[in-house]
Amino acid sequence: MKEIGIALLGLGNVGLGTYRILADHARDIERRLGARVRVRHILVRDSGRARPEDVPAALITRDIAPILADPEVSVVVEVMGGLSPAREFLEKAIASGRHVVTANKALLTAHGEALFSQALARGVDLHFEGAVCGGIPIIRTLREALASDRVSSIHGIVNGTTNFILSAMADEGSTYEDALARAQKLGYAEADPTLDVNGMDAAQKLCLLASLAFAARVSPKDVHVEGITSLRPVDITLGREAGYVLKLLAIARRLPEGLDVRVHPAFIPGASPLADVRGAFNAVLLQSAALGASLFSGLGAGSLPTGSAVVSDIIDICRNLLAGVSGRLPMLSAPYVQEVPQIPSDERRGPVYLRFSVSDEPGVLGRIATVLGEKGVSLASVIQRPARPEDPHATIVVFTHTARERDVQAAVQWIDALRSTRSPTQVIRIEEGPGVLRVGG
Amino acid sequence: MKEIGIALLGLGNVGLGTYRILADHARDIERRLGARVRVRHILVRDSGRARPEDVPAALITRDIAPILADPEVSVVVEVMGGLSPAREFLEKAIASGRHVVTANKALLTAHGEALFSQALARGVDLHFEGAVCGGIPIIRTLREALASDRVSSIHGIVNGTTNFILSAMADEGSTYEDALARAQKLGYAEADPTLDVNGMDAAQKLCLLASLAFAARVSPKDVHVEGITSLRPVDITLGREAGYVLKLLAIARRLPEGLDVRVHPAFIPGASPLADVRGAFNAVLLQSAALGASLFSGLGAGSLPTGSAVVSDIIDICRNLLAGVSGRLPMLSAPYVQEVPQIPSDERRGPVYLRFSVSDEPGVLGRIATVLGEKGVSLASVIQRPARPEDPHATIVVFTHTARERDVQAAVQWIDALRSTRSPTQVIRIEEGPGVLRVGG
Repeated sequence: MKEIGIALLGLGNVGLGTYRILADHARDIERRLGARVRVRHILVRDSGRARPEDVPAALITRDIAPILADPEVSVVVEVMGGLSPAREFLEKAIASGRHVVTANKALLTAHGEALFSQALARGVDLHFEGAVCGGIPIIRTLREALASDRVSSIHGIVNGTTNFILSAMADEGSTYEDALARAQKLGYAEADPTLDVNGMDAAQKLCLLASLAFAARVSPKDVHVEGITSLRPVDITLGREAGYVLKLLAIARRLPEGLDVRVHPAFIPGASPLADVRGAFNAVLLQSAALGASLFSGLGAGSLPTGSAVVSDIIDICRNLLAGVSGRLPMLSAPYVQEVPQIPSDERRGPVYLRFSVSDEPGVLGRIATVLGEKGVSLASVIQRPARPEDPHATIVVFTHTARERDVQAAVQWIDALRSTRSPTQVIRIEEGPGVLRVGG
Repeated sequence: MKEIGIALLGLGNVGLGTYRILADHARDIERRLGARVRVRHILVRDSGRARPEDVPAALITRDIAPILADPEVSVVVEVMGGLSPAREFLEKAIASGRHVVTANKALLTAHGEALFSQALARGVDLHFEGAVCGGIPIIRTLREALASDRVSSIHGIVNGTTNFILSAMADEGSTYEDALARAQKLGYAEADPTLDVNGMDAAQKLCLLASLAFAARVSPKDVHVEGITSLRPVDITLGREAGYVLKLLAIARRLPEGLDVRVHPAFIPGASPLADVRGAFNAVLLQSAALGASLFSGLGAGSLPTGSAVVSDIIDICRNLLAGVSGRLPMLSAPYVQEVPQIPSDERRGPVYLRFSVSDEPGVLGRIATVLGEKGVSLASVIQRPARPEDPHATIVVFTHTARERDVQAAVQWIDALRSTRSPTQVIRIEEGPGVLRVGG
């Protein structure tokens, strides 16, 4: 039986998952391919880490050189993470004519265009299903299944850590800090969760999704990003009373004026299919011209889900190798991706939730309502709660009608400067967009 | 720019959707392909039907001969439906070396293996994304994204007509007949809905999904099929009171003893992601070794969703043509698909809901409980409702613990023969399998 040699760069969480799936599903994969996939080298830089028992010592190398020197290696699989030396290793692999697979969203958002261009010029494949939502084949779906269609919007829950934290806050009334500690204890959050909780991880994934969906150059600097660290259980409770669920949403929309791309906490209708996506699950809701709404959901990360995505990329490249082709799919670089105007985030129009923390005295609501009115922000409903033992300030919550974000910000700036305002106003956007998957009925 | 010629066989609902997507998204498709897709012929048999204005008369032909004689036609797309002459046309197209696309699940379940074998021998591609759940790229997902994984079960809502009817019965308390009439009026059910409501349409789709997922030969005769025509609003109401939602489920599971493949109405937990799939939407929930649970949801049928699936197949074949390859994916025929033992449906073990319609007299519940106990069917809970003006018989509903289907059937046979039993007992299986997409949290 024909054999295709591959090399893994990295043997962390995803690398080990990739290795184990290739080993455990070897017979199935052989039948599907009509060929054997053989791991010939595994590059491990951290010599201090114990090698798992099921990985033969003979495969381990500390250096890229023997991999590049081995003519039997056709595919190089980068699962080491980080920008350097992952970037240099991939560049060398592509330069040597190897097809490459990567699960490295940070690298692709930072240097993807150069890598895709290099792969295009060299005539090799660069696959990256593992870079976004491990357990959901969303890259493949956008690259192939929706090649027939025009995507108009993406609404995604693409970070499992923050979704776990928000689910725990909603279900148990935990504070953000307690929910984060529990996520860390259970392995759903890293020791340093900064890139997850500040929304940057989601923003990187969204850049890749939006680039694919809209054939547009989208980089993190184009994305308006807010994290979840300022959210409080009271926001979740008050939102729920109004029929909403709070999620960290990654949103990309194609509008006539350009692209609207952002990551922030958002209230979505309780009946939205995204409202039911809980814990470490991810989901992506697409709207497209022909299909209408379609929803994809699965585990967002983890050794086996992401490993499975990496192995499906390896299989796809093996199918190309066996057929003697490459470059079947467009690369995320010029001429395929193009410059598309971005809509400034403060041009957004939509309803918002505003929570004001104020001194418990007469006239405060009147002043707030007056400022909102002057800025053109119209009120849909108001809740006022007096000071309580656990919170010495009164709380005023306003759900607005559709308003322009710039006007909301201007009003909040005024209100936060009022003597009666006790802490910065919490602003949470309400997104009715990811509505209900329902037709007729 | 390079041009790829295609021919459409059929210009019904799906054919017209395919034509319009190719026309409306032509520029996007050109950019993605680097080539133009040109419809050169459309075969229309029914000369009485008015030609839509946007389809040029010059494209229409009544005969397959000019299509086969045109050397510029590389891909033949069968969207006419029915077994004959669709089968003969596809055979001729394959024999002449054309790649083929079909959306014809009935044809593929009846004669798929012969067609796939012929395509394999002739070295051409045969794609069929449009045959199952138009708006969900589930064929592609199973053939490619999950090529790395081992699927253990499929739970699907794969028929939009029955899902629409059951949603309407649940939401409005309609009878089956009223809900069907409304579905027909709104275009969600055909004038002759037999194959939808008796479960056969779902069974055909399930055969294709199970064949792909398990590389196994699965034909409709292997599938235990029950439709929805005997369901009554009271079943939906009583199930809901116990926390369940009633759906027509297509289920395929790989167990150590073989495959368990069936289509029937089932109660699923209200928290299941499938419980929220409403109206004309379809959804497929997969369980696999590496990914765990993953869910795919979208519109199940319709001109544009199915047309979009067909066009994505056309694009995939065009990518192969431009690269000069074919046969990248395994065909659903030997040697890839194999014989796998089937588990008889009466070996199923699980809880069931039983609704008995009985005369309102003393001792009836005792007799029923005795028969169930003798057959080894143990009761989890019982509801007894007296006769009412709208129903002259008393109703007894039993939720059982896990029981073997054969034992349940034997008990029901006994009970239906009792003098006190007024109409055949309603048996609805309870499937806890498609549980909640939740980790931790």
